[in-house]
Amino acid sequence: MSRLLIKNAKALLGTHPVGALRVSGNAMADLPHIEDGWLLVENDRITGLGGMDTWPGVTDWNGLEVIDATGRYVLPGWCDPHTHAVFAATREEEWVDRIRGLTYQEIAAKGGGILNSARKLREASEDDLFLSSKARLEELMRLGTVAIEIKSGYGLSLEAELKMLRVVKRLKSELLLQVKATLLGAHALPLEFKDDREAYINMVIKELIPACAAEQLADHVDVFCETNYFTVPEMVRILEAAAAHGLPGKVHVNQFTSIGAIHEAVQHNCLSVDHLEVMTDADFTALANSATIPTLLPGCSFFLGIPYGPARQLMANGNAVALASDFNPGSSPSGNMNTVVSLACTQMNMLPEEAINAATLNAAAAMGLSHELGSLSVGKRASFIVTRPLHSPAALPYFFGSDGIDTVVINGRITRAGEAVA
Amino acid sequence: MSRLLIKNAKALLGTHPVGALRVSGNAMADLPHIEDGWLLVENDRITGLGGMDTWPGVTDWNGLEVIDATGRYVLPGWCDPHTHAVFAATREEEWVDRIRGLTYQEIAAKGGGILNSARKLREASEDDLFLSSKARLEELMRLGTVAIEIKSGYGLSLEAELKMLRVVKRLKSELLLQVKATLLGAHALPLEFKDDREAYINMVIKELIPACAAEQLADHVDVFCETNYFTVPEMVRILEAAAAHGLPGKVHVNQFTSIGAIHEAVQHNCLSVDHLEVMTDADFTALANSATIPTLLPGCSFFLGIPYGPARQLMANGNAVALASDFNPGSSPSGNMNTVVSLACTQMNMLPEEAINAATLNAAAAMGLSHELGSLSVGKRASFIVTRPLHSPAALPYFFGSDGIDTVVINGRITRAGEAVA
Repeated sequence: MSRLLIKNAKALLGTHPVGALRVSGNAMADLPHIEDGWLLVENDRITGLGGMDTWPGVTDWNGLEVIDATGRYVLPGWCDPHTHAVFAATREEEWVDRIRGLTYQEIAAKGGGILNSARKLREASEDDLFLSSKARLEELMRLGTVAIEIKSGYGLSLEAELKMLRVVKRLKSELLLQVKATLLGAHALPLEFKDDREAYINMVIKELIPACAAEQLADHVDVFCETNYFTVPEMVRILEAAAAHGLPGKVHVNQFTSIGAIHEAVQHNCLSVDHLEVMTDADFTALANSATIPTLLPGCSFFLGIPYGPARQLMANGNAVALASDFNPGSSPSGNMNTVVSLACTQMNMLPEEAINAATLNAAAAMGLSHELGSLSVGKRASFIVTRPLHSPAALPYFFGSDGIDTVVINGRITRAGEAVA
Repeated sequence: MSRLLIKNAKALLGTHPVGALRVSGNAMADLPHIEDGWLLVENDRITGLGGMDTWPGVTDWNGLEVIDATGRYVLPGWCDPHTHAVFAATREEEWVDRIRGLTYQEIAAKGGGILNSARKLREASEDDLFLSSKARLEELMRLGTVAIEIKSGYGLSLEAELKMLRVVKRLKSELLLQVKATLLGAHALPLEFKDDREAYINMVIKELIPACAAEQLADHVDVFCETNYFTVPEMVRILEAAAAHGLPGKVHVNQFTSIGAIHEAVQHNCLSVDHLEVMTDADFTALANSATIPTLLPGCSFFLGIPYGPARQLMANGNAVALASDFNPGSSPSGNMNTVVSLACTQMNMLPEEAINAATLNAAAAMGLSHELGSLSVGKRASFIVTRPLHSPAALPYFFGSDGIDTVVINGRITRAGEAVA
């Protein structure tokens, strides 16, 4: 058995009660904590924690690794419940075209957008995709990400979608962080189906979803429900087909327009509705008091220059807001959750405690993982961050160009060793 | 003699002609470069560069260190011509108060703002200030900053202002990066002078400026010329007193209001006018075709939620725009110039080439250093960045949560060694 002891932490942050699977509304402003704390890890789990005044002491030092966290905070590692982190090529040339003033339509006409990623992904080998994605995820692990959801959606054919999801499956098995896979066959209508959308949707429903279920390649199903992409009735058909195979929905809604998707997503028990940059009163009402988690993506708003999601309104309505990076080469080329938390505070007016809850416990909930991640609680995975010496937890998002991280532990293993270890 | 050879660079970026001391207007969109390049360093200087097809080869390997930059770009290190990087304490609690909706006035009434930093700085020892600032600058050197301007302005008394500037002088002598010192005695009116501003201004003019000149503690003089801070006539008096001691002006203007400061700053040959978030037509006219450099601070706009500086308009007017971090604990708690360059592109619509020129050659010019920094040119200091393998230079700001840096060389010495070195 491997054992790791953290002692003298300035505070343990996010010590939610065992069994708390999310934190909602006004309660998000409270980040439960234990000052002057210790935390014990055995193998991949947290097996004890408390204040130093309750520390039982060490009788068996055999194989025990000790981190002295004096002056430092310990908090749950970041969970990132919405990414497109498997991709074949960057798309900075489209971004430069946008800076030059080209519209989305003009960029699409030049061969840009999701279909650009799809073309390049179809050409890439499964091994190359795996290696480039693995390098990307290893960087994110150093930045404190301990769980990540990854979507397909750049394949847009049976074969290429399954190739992407097999890459995700390899990442799941070969990396230390937790990975969840989401089938996003309905991300855009591929060119070869542009005159027959019904045939493509039928392929998703009758071939892709059953194939994913058979190979256990997906944990969730997603649809880009948006003007010029997929309609609400099409989303509903796909969600119903997914439900028949036991796959819950996590859907892209209300990024550019509000077309009634949230009401239907809630009715169909979606785990999360993601984006929400454009919201009507009816959308807020449909979401309030539902179990569906609103996942906001400030990196996308920052990079595209579109409105930020309405974090304060959602919390006022009692929702359990989650944050994610939306890491993708077109609209959010960063998976750095430290940056996401800073953006949430500086641009969306979330308090640091709210943003940390949103990027840990609620983010874990938005990917079906809050029973084992997202808080410092006995029995959960030992996946956490030890900060540099900081004056307060708020300093973490305040230093917006810096990650504030000293050491990262994932599943009980020191993944990034800082000064607290040395 | 120490020698360092960079070979096989995907491109050398920023290879401006020897003697080019700034780049203005439309020309900023051109970042001169040499593809497939080599660059030779002897001691602290660049002594040769060119395309690999012109490489003379190595006859004497004795003591020659070689970096193979295959797939990587080499560009001049970041110059940061506007910071308040010497400070005694962070101020994240004021930021949280702002998120909660408090106004500046309310935060000031609670003891916040510049006077909060001044109170804490006066209590800090010179040694403690030196050590905390040194650690901050060492982190920035890892992030590619090779030259930095640092202002006083948290002392607000003869003794405390000189203490700050002595700290800057120690940083100058003990660190590898270039440091420029700016006296900002007129940053805010200290409490003890609140009923006698004339007495404080007299102290700045008759005691502080001469003392700085006598001890050679300052390279420039700054004034926060702004409604509720210092007036235009007060700025003019201070600039004239500084000029009598040979100290050029670099002034804070047009952050919240336009009160005619730019016209006077230009008339008084200021090296730079910094901030410029609020501009009138008359301000643009005064600046157009002047030698005064407009320095924009997107980190401050990002963190305070105020407008971004008008980069495109200034370039259209023919100005040589510079970028700086404004690193300070109140309005921009980050000195990460990679983040600044990303903000300039994503939020101010600067092209990557424009932003890189603004953060290198023009930033060097805004601190009087472009004769020896800011481009890859023979004779200049060997202070540059080797990137990770990137698809294009635009990828550097595009990956907004990541610094894209592999290796940093400052004054000919490898300060951060990445994979290209190993």
